[in-house]
Amino acid sequence: MRPSRRAPDELRAVSLERGVVKYAEGSCLVKFGDTHVLVTATLEERLPPWLKGQGRGWVTAEYGMLPRATLERTRREASAGKQNGRTVEIQRLIGRSLRTIVDLEALGERQITVDCDVLQADGGTRTASITGAWVALADCLNWMKARNMIKGQVLRDNVAAISCGIYNGTPVLDLDYAEDSEAETDANFVMTGDGRLVEVQGTAERTPFSQDEFLQLMALAQKGVARLVDLQKMAVG
Amino acid sequence: MRPSRRAPDELRAVSLERGVVKYAEGSCLVKFGDTHVLVTATLEERLPPWLKGQGRGWVTAEYGMLPRATLERTRREASAGKQNGRTVEIQRLIGRSLRTIVDLEALGERQITVDCDVLQADGGTRTASITGAWVALADCLNWMKARNMIKGQVLRDNVAAISCGIYNGTPVLDLDYAEDSEAETDANFVMTGDGRLVEVQGTAERTPFSQDEFLQLMALAQKGVARLVDLQKMAVG
Amino acid sequence: MRPSRRAPDELRAVSLERGVVKYAEGSCLVKFGDTHVLVTATLEERLPPWLKGQGRGWVTAEYGMLPRATLERTRREASAGKQNGRTVEIQRLIGRSLRTIVDLEALGERQITVDCDVLQADGGTRTASITGAWVALADCLNWMKARNMIKGQVLRDNVAAISCGIYNGTPVLDLDYAEDSEAETDANFVMTGDGRLVEVQGTAERTPFSQDEFLQLMALAQKGVARLVDLQKMAVG
Amino acid sequence: MRPSRRAPDELRAVSLERGVVKYAEGSCLVKFGDTHVLVTATLEERLPPWLKGQGRGWVTAEYGMLPRATLERTRREASAGKQNGRTVEIQRLIGRSLRTIVDLEALGERQITVDCDVLQADGGTRTASITGAWVALADCLNWMKARNMIKGQVLRDNVAAISCGIYNGTPVLDLDYAEDSEAETDANFVMTGDGRLVEVQGTAERTPFSQDEFLQLMALAQKGVARLVDLQKMAVG
Amino acid sequence: MRPSRRAPDELRAVSLERGVVKYAEGSCLVKFGDTHVLVTATLEERLPPWLKGQGRGWVTAEYGMLPRATLERTRREASAGKQNGRTVEIQRLIGRSLRTIVDLEALGERQITVDCDVLQADGGTRTASITGAWVALADCLNWMKARNMIKGQVLRDNVAAISCGIYNGTPVLDLDYAEDSEAETDANFVMTGDGRLVEVQGTAERTPFSQDEFLQLMALAQKGVARLVDLQKMAVG
Amino acid sequence: MRPSRRAPDELRAVSLERGVVKYAEGSCLVKFGDTHVLVTATLEERLPPWLKGQGRGWVTAEYGMLPRATLERTRREASAGKQNGRTVEIQRLIGRSLRTIVDLEALGERQITVDCDVLQADGGTRTASITGAWVALADCLNWMKARNMIKGQVLRDNVAAISCGIYNGTPVLDLDYAEDSEAETDANFVMTGDGRLVEVQGTAERTPFSQDEFLQLMALAQKGVARLVDLQKMAVG
Repeated sequence: MRPSRRAPDELRAVSLERGVVKYAEGSCLVKFGDTHVLVTATLEERLPPWLKGQGRGWVTAEYGMLPRATLERTRREASAGKQNGRTVEIQRLIGRSLRTIVDLEALGERQITVDCDVLQADGGTRTASITGAWVALADCLNWMKARNMIKGQVLRDNVAAISCGIYNGTPVLDLDYAEDSEAETDANFVMTGDGRLVEVQGTAERTPFSQDEFLQLMALAQKGVARLVDLQKMAVG
Repeated sequence: MRPSRRAPDELRAVSLERGVVKYAEGSCLVKFGDTHVLVTATLEERLPPWLKGQGRGWVTAEYGMLPRATLERTRREASAGKQNGRTVEIQRLIGRSLRTIVDLEALGERQITVDCDVLQADGGTRTASITGAWVALADCLNWMKARNMIKGQVLRDNVAAISCGIYNGTPVLDLDYAEDSEAETDANFVMTGDGRLVEVQGTAERTPFSQDEFLQLMALAQKGVARLVDLQKMAVG
Repeated sequence: MRPSRRAPDELRAVSLERGVVKYAEGSCLVKFGDTHVLVTATLEERLPPWLKGQGRGWVTAEYGMLPRATLERTRREASAGKQNGRTVEIQRLIGRSLRTIVDLEALGERQITVDCDVLQADGGTRTASITGAWVALADCLNWMKARNMIKGQVLRDNVAAISCGIYNGTPVLDLDYAEDSEAETDANFVMTGDGRLVEVQGTAERTPFSQDEFLQLMALAQKGVARLVDLQKMAVG
Repeated sequence: MRPSRRAPDELRAVSLERGVVKYAEGSCLVKFGDTHVLVTATLEERLPPWLKGQGRGWVTAEYGMLPRATLERTRREASAGKQNGRTVEIQRLIGRSLRTIVDLEALGERQITVDCDVLQADGGTRTASITGAWVALADCLNWMKARNMIKGQVLRDNVAAISCGIYNGTPVLDLDYAEDSEAETDANFVMTGDGRLVEVQGTAERTPFSQDEFLQLMALAQKGVARLVDLQKMAVG
Repeated sequence: MRPSRRAPDELRAVSLERGVVKYAEGSCLVKFGDTHVLVTATLEERLPPWLKGQGRGWVTAEYGMLPRATLERTRREASAGKQNGRTVEIQRLIGRSLRTIVDLEALGERQITVDCDVLQADGGTRTASITGAWVALADCLNWMKARNMIKGQVLRDNVAAISCGIYNGTPVLDLDYAEDSEAETDANFVMTGDGRLVEVQGTAERTPFSQDEFLQLMALAQKGVARLVDLQKMAVG
Repeated sequence: MRPSRRAPDELRAVSLERGVVKYAEGSCLVKFGDTHVLVTATLEERLPPWLKGQGRGWVTAEYGMLPRATLERTRREASAGKQNGRTVEIQRLIGRSLRTIVDLEALGERQITVDCDVLQADGGTRTASITGAWVALADCLNWMKARNMIKGQVLRDNVAAISCGIYNGTPVLDLDYAEDSEAETDANFVMTGDGRLVEVQGTAERTPFSQDEFLQLMALAQKGVARLVDLQKMAVG
């Protein structure tokens, strides 16, 4: 029995609310149960120096957590003077995931920065961030299309993410914090709308896991991401 | 005529929503029109080193702005590696304002940290922060009272803040961004429930102002703060 | 009775010594009693990036304190790796105060940096800094005028600053450290030669203050600044 | 055909040279072809503050690259003032991988720090680091055993790592830099001596990959890790 | 002919003014011509962690330069966020030089921090700093002696420093900036009152120098330091 | 008797192995006994901003130590966030030493960066670094010559370095760590192939030393450097 009484393959209640920040070209407040992430997509007519003059654009992401998004207050990174290792890992993952489904040539020499700020954290902040980021990004691209800044299919596919883990010996989908802190194994899957893999990250928290266990997690993830992609399509549709 | 068509002494629509973050001992989503600030109050059984063993507690504040809270994206301070001067100024102001109305001896040897994070900025983020911080702080103290951690009157009074300025030659209350960026003079007033001053900060943006002009701003502020204090009382009442 | 036996409206002995650093375009060693600040004004043919090509110049300030300017040694900010919040607040105040009385268009596309370094601190370092900075700035502009780099009235007025506070229930002018650490209320006034306000910063250290008390402080400040402006005129005259 | 003319399931020449730094409790110079990493294991009688008094030890890792380990010189992180995101990711991966196969209770309240410094980089530095780190760690634990500092089986299993990728449409084992920079998909597998998974990280560099492709990579990895574990056993045997 | 018209073995006008900062246990404003350094010595009842409980004290130094001490303004280190390499080198040299002539056991478990802040720089700031630091340190030790905090001979000898160089082919004493920037060779000598060497630093700016040239510089230095030691004795006597 | 049983004027076993890093334009693994330093020379077609357009090139150096190069592990500077004072001093010394013997005009507008990374430290890391750096630099210049990038004599002379000290009252050459930590006096000499001085750094560790003692150390150094220069010539010959 999961602490939340969910079935092993059951997602938390997911909502994707668009247009939540009035200035941003795209925005989404994504909720996976009690995990709430505010995502904005910002278009800028500039590029990182190493990318200039190559006829391609760039999509990057930054991630942050409000200090009291968590059970105990965590130190504000701006005041600590640096982003910690976990933050850096997550924002790199979000950026890579989004770039896989964007046609950077069709985007043109511009940068879209996706900011994912966690307002409340109950496990799965990186997967909620990626799932919501796709919505904010889609809205940003629609904003550009409405202004004739881009043509054709810049967004090649959906991308969404979900965590899975082995909790009390059972593979379960979409871990919340209570499960995550007890799980033997924890894996995050980033997948496209057509079910292919973009990123896979599996970690044995305490004991190594078998290939078979891993395949069970992957199967669960596929179901979960398919559902998330449906929700994304409904949100922007 | 103000861009928002408000009367000179008219506040923007103000709302104070409590209990918005499930982990925090106190929290408040404060809105002054399109300025939205998420405030949490965190109780911790620790003190800054220089305050230990003196039988007194401490209240401090941190302030941040999500990168796309503003018209143009601003650089994330955590990634820049430091808080800028404006941030530091504002968080020091919030902390001082709150400490004036808290009985630190009655609080006991504990620290309450108030985090003010701006989700959307349309002028007056520091005054909205202080006004909402009082609500989050009051809820945190009520949380402690319910657990018999404190007795008596730890919170001595209300505290709220409002900006005033001279816009097109007319003194007006509660500047939004459109007014703030054009105002000749800009002043922030932090006042208690009984109308006394806690902090006054007046700045001539372009041309110095007379004492008489300053007194007109102070009179406007008094009206505005009285209204904000009423709203605070309704919120927590 | 004030610890220094001064009358409530009596300044400390003030001196403004010019030309104290041989390389600087303008310099001033300002003393308010035992508070000693060395101020230099540096002219540079460069601008902050965001100001380039707008036909205007810039005046900015930096503030520092020698580690043993104070009763107890304070940590050297260069070795700590950052400027603390108080330093940042003060240098921003000095810069804003000076810019209000400079015609930045007439200055041309150049930057003047005013460095205020406290050699000895006995209260009122920010007000002494602003008062001395005007002298260094005036000398820097005279240096430019002598080289035909500017014409007309770049310096529109004097600017000087003084602190006031309520000490033992009595409003007093120009707090020294012994008074400052005991005062209930502390306010800094930056004013022009014609008596208008440039910056007002009032802070209730422990108990909020009434508007009437604040007006008494403002009246004292006006007397004090008028005297400082006379001294500035004598110094550069 | 691979640039190195290796068969798809062929490792580069691997060597594991022990005892290369005279002061370290354990050390290993690991070579995967032209990728050379110097690994040391340091035993210290101290713990991170959050772990004190829990009867458990800790194993952590740091990773670095000499500036000219790469084709183009990269900036020295010590001089840049921080470790970049890739470095942070890799050293966290190494630490997690090692902790999975160490009995931290049996280690006692001590810390082992594994430093992996890349002398020359030709792809696969993280997998070489983990593979060599196990050897340095094993020697460090043997050093402790010889001094009766630990008893029983502190090291529960081997751990080794290898990368796989899809190069020109073919799944291949142990990518060198020429392959890595061209591969469509890149995955790193960290596995134990008994073939279970400790960490899986798969990344679609340009196009998403299917689950079937991923399974082929996993099968290759299993062969590669089995061979690396044999080499580790020969090295320490 | 030297630019200053001094004889090859002639020092600049040197003055050592004591008691210039009212709070410090010892202080000295040292002038070597137009090079002016404000030195304070601070006594603190604390020690660096690695020195605790060994029955010995510590003497350390910090060095800084006001931004406009130089012909061109240099960036403020506190604002740049770190001390540059030259600053670090100099403050380490000052600290080592002073420790050589202090009996750290007799000092007891306390730290004296000597701050050397350059108000105006015309060459030789490190040698002026060391020479003035001895005076501030001597006063600090006398302050302690007057309070019976130490007994016996804590200060074992004088220490002073001077630069020498080869200017236009001639060995000269006490280089000012005009000479220093043109000199082929530049050496700093730190010596005790009895003529022995504490530190020697010789640098070929452009062309290597012979041992014979070096001996000529050392002979000049010995004359210069002897004169400085006389001045120190007159200052504190 | 020295701990290593060497004669007072006897160097440790010295080896200079070239071509140890496949990417670098020049490289050298230098060993002075148990002190091992990996040196690379990197050619870049860029210059520090302050040197652009002057028709001259630049040679600079960076120095680092692997954390476990030493008896006790030292903190990784990249993780500490800055280079410590000792590191900064040493890398500046290496850079200055190399520039003295390079014709920067003949080099052209390019920069050579020499990285010296200590793999194992047993005293004398800076002198080993300089001695090995000359070999890496010579190879880098030969690489350029083979590509017709430079002509004529860019390398004007050899440069090598050795430490000397007074150990148990006897002047000895090439201190290892056991001697260095006990020596009364420690001096480093950087000399050219023709026996002239480039840098001299002498430090009294505990007691000041006489000029006569210093001359004995200089004589020893001359013998040592002559031998090192012979070895350099054999290495590149």
